Amino acid sequence: MSIPALDLSADPIDLTAALVDIASVSRDETTIADAVERALREQLTGFEVIRHGNCVLARTDRGKATRVILAGHLDTVPIVDNVPSRRTVTDEEGDVLHGCGTVDMKSGDAVFLHLAATLDEPAHDLTLIFYDCEEIAAEFNGLGTIERELPDWLHGDVAILGEPTAGLIEAGCQGTLRVRFTATGTRAHSARAWMGDNAIHKLGGLLTTLAAYRPRRVDIDGCEYREGLSAVGIRGGVAGNVIPDEVYVDVNFRFAPDRSVEQAFDHVREVFAAELSAGLVTAEVTDSASGALPGLAHPAAAALVAAADGKFRAKYGWTDVSRFSALGIPAVNLGPGDPSLAHRVDERVPVEQITQVADILRTYLSS
Amino acid sequence: MSIPALDLSADPIDLTAALVDIASVSRDETTIADAVERALREQLTGFEVIRHGNCVLARTDRGKATRVILAGHLDTVPIVDNVPSRRTVTDEEGDVLHGCGTVDMKSGDAVFLHLAATLDEPAHDLTLIFYDCEEIAAEFNGLGTIERELPDWLHGDVAILGEPTAGLIEAGCQGTLRVRFTATGTRAHSARAWMGDNAIHKLGGLLTTLAAYRPRRVDIDGCEYREGLSAVGIRGGVAGNVIPDEVYVDVNFRFAPDRSVEQAFDHVREVFAAELSAGLVTAEVTDSASGALPGLAHPAAAALVAAADGKFRAKYGWTDVSRFSALGIPAVNLGPGDPSLAHRVDERVPVEQITQVADILRTYLSS
Repeated sequence: MSIPALDLSADPIDLTAALVDIASVSRDETTIADAVERALREQLTGFEVIRHGNCVLARTDRGKATRVILAGHLDTVPIVDNVPSRRTVTDEEGDVLHGCGTVDMKSGDAVFLHLAATLDEPAHDLTLIFYDCEEIAAEFNGLGTIERELPDWLHGDVAILGEPTAGLIEAGCQGTLRVRFTATGTRAHSARAWMGDNAIHKLGGLLTTLAAYRPRRVDIDGCEYREGLSAVGIRGGVAGNVIPDEVYVDVNFRFAPDRSVEQAFDHVREVFAAELSAGLVTAEVTDSASGALPGLAHPAAAALVAAADGKFRAKYGWTDVSRFSALGIPAVNLGPGDPSLAHRVDERVPVEQITQVADILRTYLSS
Repeated sequence: MSIPALDLSADPIDLTAALVDIASVSRDETTIADAVERALREQLTGFEVIRHGNCVLARTDRGKATRVILAGHLDTVPIVDNVPSRRTVTDEEGDVLHGCGTVDMKSGDAVFLHLAATLDEPAHDLTLIFYDCEEIAAEFNGLGTIERELPDWLHGDVAILGEPTAGLIEAGCQGTLRVRFTATGTRAHSARAWMGDNAIHKLGGLLTTLAAYRPRRVDIDGCEYREGLSAVGIRGGVAGNVIPDEVYVDVNFRFAPDRSVEQAFDHVREVFAAELSAGLVTAEVTDSASGALPGLAHPAAAALVAAADGKFRAKYGWTDVSRFSALGIPAVNLGPGDPSLAHRVDERVPVEQITQVADILRTYLSS
C-alpha cells in the first residue's frame, strides 16, 4: 500500500480532513504513522525525526531558552460509517467538518503539523510527539511507551496536548481515587432474619452522608476545580431468601490537584468517620491517580495563556497531561472540537475552531 | 434391578435406615418408589394403593368422620459420601442414625409407613402420599403434580407433613413477599458529577428505615410468629467513572399468616412511605406466596396437639403445608430431626426422636 501524501503547508482544516481520511483505529495506525513520518521528513527543516513503533517524533535543537512539547495521538475509536470526512455549511451550524477523529483528535494533530512546517522562526525549541493507542487500555498507550523507552524525548518546559477543548486552554487535571466500602454480617435464612446480621442494612448512614456531601470548589492558579464524591457501584446479596453477609459500595472521589492521593483518602475517611469508627464498614483504596496542578504560573505557560487572551479553565477529567505533570512539566489541553462530541457517530468540528487554535499557537510559538 | 424389600412392621428406626440405604436423589426416585409401592401393596390391608409417576398413594375408605393425610417426599438432596446409613452410640450424642435423608425426611416417611402397616384400628380414615422432586424447583414438585392431576386425593380434615421439626408440631407458615425498590437518576462522567443525578445516593433513607424497622411478633392460635423485613440484594453501577442512573434493592418481607399478600404489600409501602412519596424510589412486587394460618382450632388438629402434650410452635419458613392450607385443610409439620441439619453432609437424627414422633402419631391416629 502506498503511503498517503500530506501537505503540511495547506490550511489545517484541509489537513484535518486528509488525516481523517486515513483510517487509524487503535492498533491499526501504521498507515497514518507512515504518512506523518514521510511528511515530517520531507517538509520540515531543522528537525530531527525518528520513528518508534507507530509513534513519530520530531524535535529542533536551536538552543532556545525554552522547549515546548506538542503531543497528539493518531488513533481513533472504531469507525461507524463516519470516514471519509465530509464538510457541510448550514445556517444552524455554519461551516463544519464531519468524521471520526475530527474532534478526537486529528484537528489538533493537523494544527501541530501545520505549525511545525510553516513557522518561520519559532521562539522556542519544539518537540512533536504523535503517538498510537491512546483510545484503548493504558498499557498500550504510545506516550507511555515513549516515557519508558525514549524518556529524553519528554524533556520540555511546557507540554500542550491537542485533545479537544473547544479551543480553550484547559489546565491541570483532577485526581481520582476509588475506595471500596465493605459491610459484613452473618448469613441466615430470611424466614429467620433475626438469626442473621444484615450487611446491606448497615449502609444507610454511608449513603445518606454521600447524598448530603457538599463538594469543594477551589481556585488554583486562577482555575476553578470542582470536586465530586460519588457512589459508582453497589453490590450485595446471595439469594432471594438469604440475609446477605456482605455488600460493597465503590465510591469515586475526584479531587482538585492541591490534594495528594493520600490526602484525598484521608479526606474520604474523615467524611465517613462515623461509619468507620462504628465498625459498620471498612475502606480500601482500589484505584487512584494523582491530579496535576495547572502550573500556569510558569512563565512559558503564562505566555500561552496570554496568547489565548487570558482564557483558560480547569480540566476535570484525567488525561495524558498528567503524565507530563508527573514529570514536573506544566501541561495543558488545547484543541479544536467539543469534547462531548468525541467518540460519537456524529463527531464533527466547526472549522473556525481549527483556525482559532492554530492562531493562538502561532502567536504563542512565535513570540 | 430388583426391588428392595422394606419391612413396614419393623422398628421405624430400622425402617428409616432401610429407606436411607435406597439412594433417591431428586429425579432419580424410581427405585425407592418401587420399593414403597411394593411394600404398601403387600403389607397393608384395607388400603387402595396407586402409583402415579414416582408418587405412591394409598388410602382407606372406612367411612370415618375425619380423614387425616400423611404426606412425605421420597427424594433427597445429592449424596456426599453419606449413604448408606450408619448408627453410632456416643456419650455426647447418644444413639444416632447418620446419613442423607435421616432428617429430611426419610425418618418421617418411615413413621408414616410403619403406622399405616401396624395400626390395628385407626380412628380416622387415612391418606398416604409419598411424592418426588420436593428438593428441586417447584415446577417438578410431586405434591403439585397430585394437586393438578389427582385432586380428589388431597381431600381431608388435617394434613401432617413429616418434615423435620425435632418432634414438635409446627403449625401454619409465614407468607413471603419480595419487593424491588428502584431508584433512577442521570448518567454522567464522575469527573463531572454535578452533571448527573446519582441513583445510589437516593437509597440512604430506605436502608436507614430498614435498619431501624422493628418486626412484629404476633400470636395466632397460640403460635407466635416473628416477621422480618430484610434487604436480600442490592445492585447498581455502570462503570468506575460513571454516575449510575439506576440501582435496585430487593426487600423480602416474611409476614405472619394473619396478613394477606396484598396487606403485606400495603404494609411495606407504609414503611417506606417517605421514600415513595418523595419519588426517590418506586416499588414493584417480584415474588409472593401467601402464608398459612395454623388452623389448630379445628377439632381434628386440636386432638393432634393434645396427643403431643400440647407442644407446638409456629413454622417460619414456607413449606408444602401451605399447599394444603390453600385448600382449606389445617396442616402441620411433624417429623424427627433437627431441620438445621438437613442438607448437610453430617445429616443425622437421634433415634429417640423417631420413636417419639411414632408414639405421638400412634396416639393421635388411634384415639
